Amino acid sequence: MDTQLRSPEPPIRPEGFGAACRDAWLLDPDIAFLNHGSFGAVPRVVLDVQDDWRRRIERRPVELMDRRMPELLGVSLDAAAGFVGADPAGTAFMVNATAAVNAVARSLSFAPGDAVATSSHVYNAIRKALQWTAARDGADYVEFDLALPIRSEDDLLERLLASIPPATRLLVIDQVSSPTGLVFPIERLLAELAPRGVRVMIDAAHAPGMLDVDVRRYFDLGAIAWTGNLHKWCFAPKGTAVLMVHPDLADRVQPTIISHHSDDPFRKRFSWQGTADFTPWLSVPEALAFGERRFGWDRLRAANHALAAWAHRCLVEHWGVEPVSPLEGDLLGSIATVRLPESACAAFDDPMALQLALYDRHRIEVPVMDWGGSWFVRVSAQAYNEPEQYLALAEAVHAL
Amino acid sequence: MDTQLRSPEPPIRPEGFGAACRDAWLLDPDIAFLNHGSFGAVPRVVLDVQDDWRRRIERRPVELMDRRMPELLGVSLDAAAGFVGADPAGTAFMVNATAAVNAVARSLSFAPGDAVATSSHVYNAIRKALQWTAARDGADYVEFDLALPIRSEDDLLERLLASIPPATRLLVIDQVSSPTGLVFPIERLLAELAPRGVRVMIDAAHAPGMLDVDVRRYFDLGAIAWTGNLHKWCFAPKGTAVLMVHPDLADRVQPTIISHHSDDPFRKRFSWQGTADFTPWLSVPEALAFGERRFGWDRLRAANHALAAWAHRCLVEHWGVEPVSPLEGDLLGSIATVRLPESACAAFDDPMALQLALYDRHRIEVPVMDWGGSWFVRVSAQAYNEPEQYLALAEAVHAL
Repeated sequence: MDTQLRSPEPPIRPEGFGAACRDAWLLDPDIAFLNHGSFGAVPRVVLDVQDDWRRRIERRPVELMDRRMPELLGVSLDAAAGFVGADPAGTAFMVNATAAVNAVARSLSFAPGDAVATSSHVYNAIRKALQWTAARDGADYVEFDLALPIRSEDDLLERLLASIPPATRLLVIDQVSSPTGLVFPIERLLAELAPRGVRVMIDAAHAPGMLDVDVRRYFDLGAIAWTGNLHKWCFAPKGTAVLMVHPDLADRVQPTIISHHSDDPFRKRFSWQGTADFTPWLSVPEALAFGERRFGWDRLRAANHALAAWAHRCLVEHWGVEPVSPLEGDLLGSIATVRLPESACAAFDDPMALQLALYDRHRIEVPVMDWGGSWFVRVSAQAYNEPEQYLALAEAVHAL
Repeated sequence: MDTQLRSPEPPIRPEGFGAACRDAWLLDPDIAFLNHGSFGAVPRVVLDVQDDWRRRIERRPVELMDRRMPELLGVSLDAAAGFVGADPAGTAFMVNATAAVNAVARSLSFAPGDAVATSSHVYNAIRKALQWTAARDGADYVEFDLALPIRSEDDLLERLLASIPPATRLLVIDQVSSPTGLVFPIERLLAELAPRGVRVMIDAAHAPGMLDVDVRRYFDLGAIAWTGNLHKWCFAPKGTAVLMVHPDLADRVQPTIISHHSDDPFRKRFSWQGTADFTPWLSVPEALAFGERRFGWDRLRAANHALAAWAHRCLVEHWGVEPVSPLEGDLLGSIATVRLPESACAAFDDPMALQLALYDRHRIEVPVMDWGGSWFVRVSAQAYNEPEQYLALAEAVHAL
C-alpha cells in the first residue's frame, strides 16, 4: 500500500539530533522509542552524576544527608526554579507531579456544595486524587467534558470557560494534557478566570523542557500553584518534580509526607519529607546543563515540536482519521495524540493488546489508550527520534 | 584520666565482623561511624544491584516501569513481607516510615473530642504529622510523658497503660523509640489495649533487621498498622520502607500520593504512587540476602545488640551519668541513648555544636540531641563497628 504519497515532507533534523545523539542515552537501539512522555529517559552523563552523588552519600551518610543536604538541594532548587521562571523561595522538590497535586489539594479544605473541578482531559491519577479529596470533605468532584476534536485555541478556551462550574473552589487544569497531548492556553484562561475568584492549580507534568514556561507570570495572572515533572522533558532522573505555590497560599500547603518542618516557611517545610534517595534531585543541575550544552533548550524545544507536529499530520493522513487538534500543530508541544483507524483496533480486545503487538512484532514503543470510547496513540518527539520511526509506526498500524 | 578501669570487658566480635567486614561498605574508614540508625549505610553489593536495575530501566523505560514493574516489585514485596512475618497481600512499599504514618493517619477521620495520642518518645516528624491530622479534624493531639529513666519493661508498660487517654482513637507507638532508643513491649501493650478498643499503629522505623519482628502476631493482638524502614537496619537503599495495614482497615487507607489505583485492593492501590525511582525497592531481595549470606540475621542481631548494650554500659560508667534504661540492656536493640555529662555540654551553645566538635576534632559521627531539656548521644551498633570506636567516644567527650 503506497501511503507514502500522502505524507508531508519530514522536517530536517538539526545537526547532532536523531541517530547522531542516540548514544547519549542507554535506550535499546533496536526499539523505536516513541514514548519519551511517560517516564522520560535519563542521559548517561546524568546517570553518572547521580552515581557519583550516591557514592559520596554512602561514604559519609550523615554529613551529606543531614548537615549538607539543605545547601546541596538548594543549588538544585535554584537551578530548577530559574529554569521555569519561578521564585526559588516558593519552590520545592516533589517525587512527581501527582504528589504535588495531592499535596496542594489535600492541604485545602472544602465544604458541601463546593466543586473541585477539572476537565475530561485530566490525567487519571489526578482524577483519583481530586475525587478522594472532594469526598473527604463532602464536596463535589466535577469533571467537565471537552470533547474532541479541539478546532482551535479559541475553541478550547471558549468551551473551557463555559464549562467551569460556578461552585468551583479548586480548578486543576493541564498545561499539556496527558491523554490528548494538547497545550492549553493557560495564560488566557487565567486572565479570564481572575475576576471569578477561582483557585487554579496548573498540572504542568509535561511542560518543563517542552514549553517555554514562566511560572511567575502564571502567578501574576492568579494561579495558586504549579507543578511540573523534570524527569520527563528535562532529563532528570525518575522521581524529580517541582511544586511552586503562590505566596498567599504557601503557609497552608503541606507536603504529602508531613515531617519535621511543618511549621517552617514553605521551602524549608518541603525540604525534608523523610529519608529518601535525594540523588535524582541533586542531579538536576547536570540534567539542565546537558540539555543546554548538547542541544540548546530553545533549539531542542523547537525541533521536538516540529517533529511532533509533522508526525501528527503524517499519521492522521496515513490513517485517514479525524485529527484531535489542528493539523498546523499550534495546539501541540512535543507529544501528539492520534486516533487509531477502526480497522486496526478491530483485531484486539483492548488498547494494551494493540500496544503489545506494536512492541512485540514491530519493536515500536508507543502508548495506546482508550479515551472517550475511542483508541488513540500518543507519540513523543525527543532529540534522539527520527522521522523514519513514525513512518514505521504508520505502516505497522496498517499491517496489524 | 584513667576511666578505662571502670569499663566492663568489651564483647568479642564474631568472626567476620568489625574491621574484617568494613570494606563491604563505602563508609569513610577515617570516621568512627556510630550512627547507622539515622540513615543506614548501603553495602557495595546492594548499590551494584541497584545500578544494574537503573541501567535495565533506562534501556527499556516503558517495558520495565510500566509493564513489568508490578511483577518485579512483587518479588521485592514478598521478600520484605516474609522477612517481617507479614501477609504479602497487606504489604506495600513506602519511601519511609514517616510517609507510612502519614498515609494511615491522614486516611482516617476524627471528631472533636477524639484524641490522637503518642508518647513523649515519639519521633519528631511523626509528632508533626499527628498534630496536623488532629488539627485538620478539630481533634486533640495528646503527647503523654514517659520521663526517663525507664527502670524495667514492667515500669514502661505500667506507665504507658496509665497514660493513654480514654478518648484515644488512634495511638501511634514506637517499637524502638528514636530519641531514646528503647524497645517498647508492644506485644504486652497490644494485649492490654485490646479490650479498650484503641486503634494502635506501630511505628517500627528502626525495628526490621534490629529485632525479630512478627507483624502477623501484632495484628492478631489487635494492631491496625505497622511500618518499618528497610534502609536503616536491612541494608536497603535509602527510600525503602514497608507498610502493613490490618485487613479490617485496608480499604480505608490511601497512599500519601493518591494515584491510579485508589479504588483497587490494598496492594495494588499502593503499587503505583506516581513515577519514581523504584530501584531502592527492587534492591530489597539483595539487601536481605546480603545480611543472611554475610552474617546470618540472627547472629547479626545478637552481635549488634551485645555491642550496643556493652557500649551503653561503658559510656554510662565512663561518664558517671544516670542510665536511661537498665544497664543489663534488656530494653535495648542495636541503638543506645546515653545522657551526656553536664561538664561536656557546658562549652557548647547547642547539641549540634557538640556533635560537630566530635566530628571535626575527633572524627566520630554520632547524633547529639536535646530530649526533655537534657543532652544525649545515641550510639548505633552495626556489623562494621568495633568496641574501640565507643571507647574513643567516651574519651572524646571527656576531652571536650
